[in-house]
Amino acid sequence: MRGSNFFQRFSKVYRDYDSHFKLVLLCTTVSGGGLLAYGEAVATSEAAVTEKKKKVLVLGTGWAGTSFLRNLNNPSYEVHVVSPRNYFTFTPLLPSVTCGTVEARSIVEPVRNIFRKKHVDSRFSEAECIKIDAVNRKVYCRSNINNNLNAKEEFVVDYDYLIIAVGANVNTFNTPGVTENCHFLKEVEDAQKIRRTVIDCFERASLPSVSEEERKRILHFAIVGGGPTGVEFAAALHDFVREDLVKLYPGVKDFVKITLLEAGGHILSMFDKRITAFAEDKFQREGIDVKTGSMVVKVSDREISTKEMKNGGEITTIPYGMAVWSTGIGTRPFIKDFMTQIGQINRRAIATDEWLRVEGTNNVYALGDCGTINQRKVMEDIAAIFKKADADNSGTLTVKECQEVINDICERYPQVELYLKSKQMHSIADLLKESKVDDKKESIELNIEELKTALANVDSQMKFLPATAQVASQQGTYLAKCFNRMEECEKNPEGPIRFREEGRHRFKPFRYKHLGQFAPLGGEETAAQLPGDWVSIGHSSQWLWYSVYASKQVSWRTRALVVSDWMKRFIFGRDSSQI
Amino acid sequence: MRGSNFFQRFSKVYRDYDSHFKLVLLCTTVSGGGLLAYGEAVATSEAAVTEKKKKVLVLGTGWAGTSFLRNLNNPSYEVHVVSPRNYFTFTPLLPSVTCGTVEARSIVEPVRNIFRKKHVDSRFSEAECIKIDAVNRKVYCRSNINNNLNAKEEFVVDYDYLIIAVGANVNTFNTPGVTENCHFLKEVEDAQKIRRTVIDCFERASLPSVSEEERKRILHFAIVGGGPTGVEFAAALHDFVREDLVKLYPGVKDFVKITLLEAGGHILSMFDKRITAFAEDKFQREGIDVKTGSMVVKVSDREISTKEMKNGGEITTIPYGMAVWSTGIGTRPFIKDFMTQIGQINRRAIATDEWLRVEGTNNVYALGDCGTINQRKVMEDIAAIFKKADADNSGTLTVKECQEVINDICERYPQVELYLKSKQMHSIADLLKESKVDDKKESIELNIEELKTALANVDSQMKFLPATAQVASQQGTYLAKCFNRMEECEKNPEGPIRFREEGRHRFKPFRYKHLGQFAPLGGEETAAQLPGDWVSIGHSSQWLWYSVYASKQVSWRTRALVVSDWMKRFIFGRDSSQI
Repeated sequence: MRGSNFFQRFSKVYRDYDSHFKLVLLCTTVSGGGLLAYGEAVATSEAAVTEKKKKVLVLGTGWAGTSFLRNLNNPSYEVHVVSPRNYFTFTPLLPSVTCGTVEARSIVEPVRNIFRKKHVDSRFSEAECIKIDAVNRKVYCRSNINNNLNAKEEFVVDYDYLIIAVGANVNTFNTPGVTENCHFLKEVEDAQKIRRTVIDCFERASLPSVSEEERKRILHFAIVGGGPTGVEFAAALHDFVREDLVKLYPGVKDFVKITLLEAGGHILSMFDKRITAFAEDKFQREGIDVKTGSMVVKVSDREISTKEMKNGGEITTIPYGMAVWSTGIGTRPFIKDFMTQIGQINRRAIATDEWLRVEGTNNVYALGDCGTINQRKVMEDIAAIFKKADADNSGTLTVKECQEVINDICERYPQVELYLKSKQMHSIADLLKESKVDDKKESIELNIEELKTALANVDSQMKFLPATAQVASQQGTYLAKCFNRMEECEKNPEGPIRFREEGRHRFKPFRYKHLGQFAPLGGEETAAQLPGDWVSIGHSSQWLWYSVYASKQVSWRTRALVVSDWMKRFIFGRDSSQI
Repeated sequence: MRGSNFFQRFSKVYRDYDSHFKLVLLCTTVSGGGLLAYGEAVATSEAAVTEKKKKVLVLGTGWAGTSFLRNLNNPSYEVHVVSPRNYFTFTPLLPSVTCGTVEARSIVEPVRNIFRKKHVDSRFSEAECIKIDAVNRKVYCRSNINNNLNAKEEFVVDYDYLIIAVGANVNTFNTPGVTENCHFLKEVEDAQKIRRTVIDCFERASLPSVSEEERKRILHFAIVGGGPTGVEFAAALHDFVREDLVKLYPGVKDFVKITLLEAGGHILSMFDKRITAFAEDKFQREGIDVKTGSMVVKVSDREISTKEMKNGGEITTIPYGMAVWSTGIGTRPFIKDFMTQIGQINRRAIATDEWLRVEGTNNVYALGDCGTINQRKVMEDIAAIFKKADADNSGTLTVKECQEVINDICERYPQVELYLKSKQMHSIADLLKESKVDDKKESIELNIEELKTALANVDSQMKFLPATAQVASQQGTYLAKCFNRMEECEKNPEGPIRFREEGRHRFKPFRYKHLGQFAPLGGEETAAQLPGDWVSIGHSSQWLWYSVYASKQVSWRTRALVVSDWMKRFIFGRDSSQI
């Protein structure tokens, strides 16, 4: 550090003087063994690079933004990151933070620490984006830091490339009272607030003047949403109560009740049925009340009203002490505004192409929960595909002709591969065969109508990617790699053929690789659904969970902290101090 | 636990039925090998104890309250603790928390954890005391926990013994703007808020739209009060900036300034002069601006106005970004109200006798910063002392007669011992000799006037105890030991003779034992002033500091956490996330 500072300072002085002086200076210091010459070389090349550096503006420091930053190593960009939080949060461990199994600080990493390890020119501003002006390539930001000044600081940042990775809002589906009375579980602050509230409830229930009925109400924890977050939080809370709090609050332990409300027919519906059944059974056995088919319609300060689907839509009310809302993802207001600007109206998230570029723009990208890939249908391009494939312009396609473009088709339209897999076919030839009775593969010839028939059901395999950390992280890495090789790929495009235009795409499109998913169920048991529908439930999966989550940490610091938190919990239990 | 629950439940059922049934039941279960008989015995003795259990109400969970709770082991009391915080804070490490050297959670221990390890019947209520009614032996409390209910819970607790250990407030000396604009450093929340604000200042100064002048203002950290807390915080902040923040905020590092404002002539004035000089010199060398003779008269949202004693009381204003007020201790409102009730008006703290019992009451005790021992002067009791000592009623005292009561005098009036020490005398005989020319000790005879002359200057050695954790902790331990042996000492009093009444005092009076004091000065250097005016400054004292503070932790949990935090800091530095 000191060395480089010396060089920078010295080279600045050096550049400020005219060349005669330079020569003298160079002669007098030549005994320095060329060090100075090196200093100048560094300075010159830096200056040259600075001139043409493109400005990349990243909004957000979540999974997508951070994995972009971590993987970007092309020094020809000047990166500016704007986010209301100066740290990255390892969100899968948020439910652990709610009960003190892991400390909040152990799962966050300052963005500036990530910068320090890179050679890319980067800066960070702690502020919220309030407006994107895509026409003039400007982003309006506002700082929320209130430093002895009531006025909020506002500023404008311009960009050459804009990367929107601001994640999603909580969606309350306009249910009355949710915003005012429910806790959410999206940010570290939310988790810390939940932790304090749990202890608050126990402390309040222990006061001498509280009636028994009130005690029951206060210690009733209601969780809305039976997705992975809701289930994991319910399990974590149950463990916290059973392993730690009952010992400290023996007088009120019998009043504790945990209810999980799910509007659908089952909890963990995105998982394999075996996992759902196991989780429902385990929760019932342990006294966590799982209410499926129960849709929350209103939350007052002391009661939750639900519509019971099983009882013909009957409305029931349940008194509660703390409610956590862990369902639904919504759009941030400035993103809605931006979508209106670019003509994307009535969508939940920003539509991008398969290269994550926002549709209707050419230098804005959207990653993670705030974006959604608008996959192109094969059927839309079928004429263009036919034309490109029909190399001899015969009006019919032979299997041989097909085979030449098949890789490009599979790359450009991922649904084709998925469709083949679902039909247990090995190649497109099998698919084409289906539409002809003729069994000699080589001689199959299709006209455009027959090709349409063959590919008619392919588009049914198009899937929206889930709003998970895994998707966001892979998208960030993908985009960083594209940016790293931008110049290279401009010259030698490596993507599939452009069916509707000439040439090839610069990059291969983004392809999501599902690595599996965990659902911790408490009591050191976890359900894991791994690729290939491999399901594992129990203590061994918990150990797998520990090792995967430890290895996925963004720095050695957080890794050490998380592991030491787990050990602390094993030795000393969780802390119940009201801070 | 389970065993005793079984017995309690069973013995309850047992006691509820009439004796005939008992006999049958006893016969049928006689094969249980006398277990039941034991159960009954336990139940009966417990019932007997419950009947006469005295209610001890402890207000506060600071050093005094907690050391009382930890040392109390007399099961004949029923303890109720009321405090707005359900945890004990190891306050000497608060300055470390402000900069993330140690985590907030590592220095707190839940009160209920302390209970769990005791066999004394205890309960805790998280609430603030709002009024003490000493006449009816009742305390009015209010819970601040806001659980889906705007009304605050209020309740009344009655007591047989009341122990007030609520500590002190911050004293702003009515300086305008201090409450609104300054940070304090008394509670864990304060330290956490300071930590967030420091990062806030750096983030705000890094915003692109901030002017250079504003940047300078924002990064000016002003600390008011050159006592141990202020000095330690200044040093900790300087370390945090130099070791961690400059690397993360290279663009603004040159704007950082730390100023320490002290109204007196020197910082650390309660320490040895060598320490003061070393600290002032070190701070100056490191660029911490120490302004002595600078009294803060007003704090606005952006400026501090000071009266410069050295410049004839000139008023100057300094722009600042964050101000920490670490001077002055005040009285909590309900304590003021209580003092008025018992006729103690215009005092800073509750006056107690040497047994920590509040003057004007016989079952209320005050410990720690909220109490002050009103030492009895020898001169007030001189007549009574003379009368008691003059065993043969001769009207004069011989040295022999003196020697018989000398231990009691020294015990009752600690200033006597201090006076002898300051005069380098070994016994009271030397003192008496001073007032007589006669050099044959045995034959010295004094009348009351001569005794008065001999002891005239003794009372000048009376000292108020400092408002430190050490004093509070020793007082808590002392009082717990008194309560532990209450019954025993009622029968066989072990204190000194009551000079004004008959018999002896129940207990020996409280005697403070000063074990030394530390002043960490940053850069792994600490000043230590140990008993016997032994002064040590430097890195070795820092290691002494580490080991003393690790050993003084109240539990193995906090000890492990604090030590692991120190190690984390050495390895990974301090965290700068905005949470």
